[in-house]
Amino acid sequence: MSKGANTREAILRAAVETACVEGLAGLNLQPLARRVGLTKSGLYAHFGSKLQLQLATIERAAELFQESVLAPAKAEPPGLARVQGVFARWLDWPACAGLPGSCPFLAAGAGFDAAEGPLRERLVRLFRDFEQVLEQLVGAAIRRGHLKRAPPPVQFVHELLALRYAHLWSARCMRDPAAAERTQAAFATLCGRAPR
Amino acid sequence: MSKGANTREAILRAAVETACVEGLAGLNLQPLARRVGLTKSGLYAHFGSKLQLQLATIERAAELFQESVLAPAKAEPPGLARVQGVFARWLDWPACAGLPGSCPFLAAGAGFDAAEGPLRERLVRLFRDFEQVLEQLVGAAIRRGHLKRAPPPVQFVHELLALRYAHLWSARCMRDPAAAERTQAAFATLCGRAPR
Repeated sequence: MSKGANTREAILRAAVETACVEGLAGLNLQPLARRVGLTKSGLYAHFGSKLQLQLATIERAAELFQESVLAPAKAEPPGLARVQGVFARWLDWPACAGLPGSCPFLAAGAGFDAAEGPLRERLVRLFRDFEQVLEQLVGAAIRRGHLKRAPPPVQFVHELLALRYAHLWSARCMRDPAAAERTQAAFATLCGRAPR
Repeated sequence: MSKGANTREAILRAAVETACVEGLAGLNLQPLARRVGLTKSGLYAHFGSKLQLQLATIERAAELFQESVLAPAKAEPPGLARVQGVFARWLDWPACAGLPGSCPFLAAGAGFDAAEGPLRERLVRLFRDFEQVLEQLVGAAIRRGHLKRAPPPVQFVHELLALRYAHLWSARCMRDPAAAERTQAAFATLCGRAPR
């Protein structure tokens, strides 16, 4: 890898870590340049604006999400096991990718609703793609007879995202030691595996 | 009301509106002073720091939440009707209080997890108080036999918050026209009123 490519990698790694801790809006050129040992103009040589840096950070975070949350499903048995595996890794993301803080996509989803522009468009597209992957996994589990009392895929995925948000809130904002237990109980009910 | 009190009211109203649109972190003294027609030092006479302004903004937002979401429950029949009423108004908050944007508390809950300090402490306390009110309402509905197939209050409230977050994401971030329908379907299931 060339020196320039190495520097770009180091900037993006630091940028994703910053986004996990301070959110995408907290991604400012000056402190990031300081953190990776560049001048602000040195950073500008790689990313010409805060927006360009934010967009590149989203792409890198999405690659890491793909690698650490979705890709391992291919080695799991098709059906319910893949839904369970993806949900478990999603709960543990971004830690399972070696990142600090919490999911920059969920934080953006709860805060970026009013902000028009390319950042919002890219985030919405990524969310849609992820929803589609989840719907396909849930559909496959239903076809295998693994989710007999669960709602149809679109509703299932809506409720799965609800549980992920509540887990973020309960585990990270409220620091409730019972967060994981509540999330698992709700997930079992959603899958129709706990009677209600 | 004295002129000073009027000015303080006008600042807080503008501050709550800003927090609904840009989040609590987006509450900066200079633009807010401009918006209410004060100098920055004029604003400082009322709130000595950004933190003081943020804390006062949270208190005012909590008062508006209390008035527009919780207080109307007293006029509703005890039991399930109050749970339904509070959830419906919570979904419609902050619009039902005449405010723009979306819930500043939920946005803070998804983004404030790492920030130690008085702002986080106050938010967590407000969330706990609100959870307790919800748990009491759900408990009263269970005692009246209205929620026979629902989970116990603490788990119910965890899942209710999940649905509120998913609604924020679906309605405001994804702008999905089916958001309300999905939220209502999930709420009916949570209440044990839709078979699964």
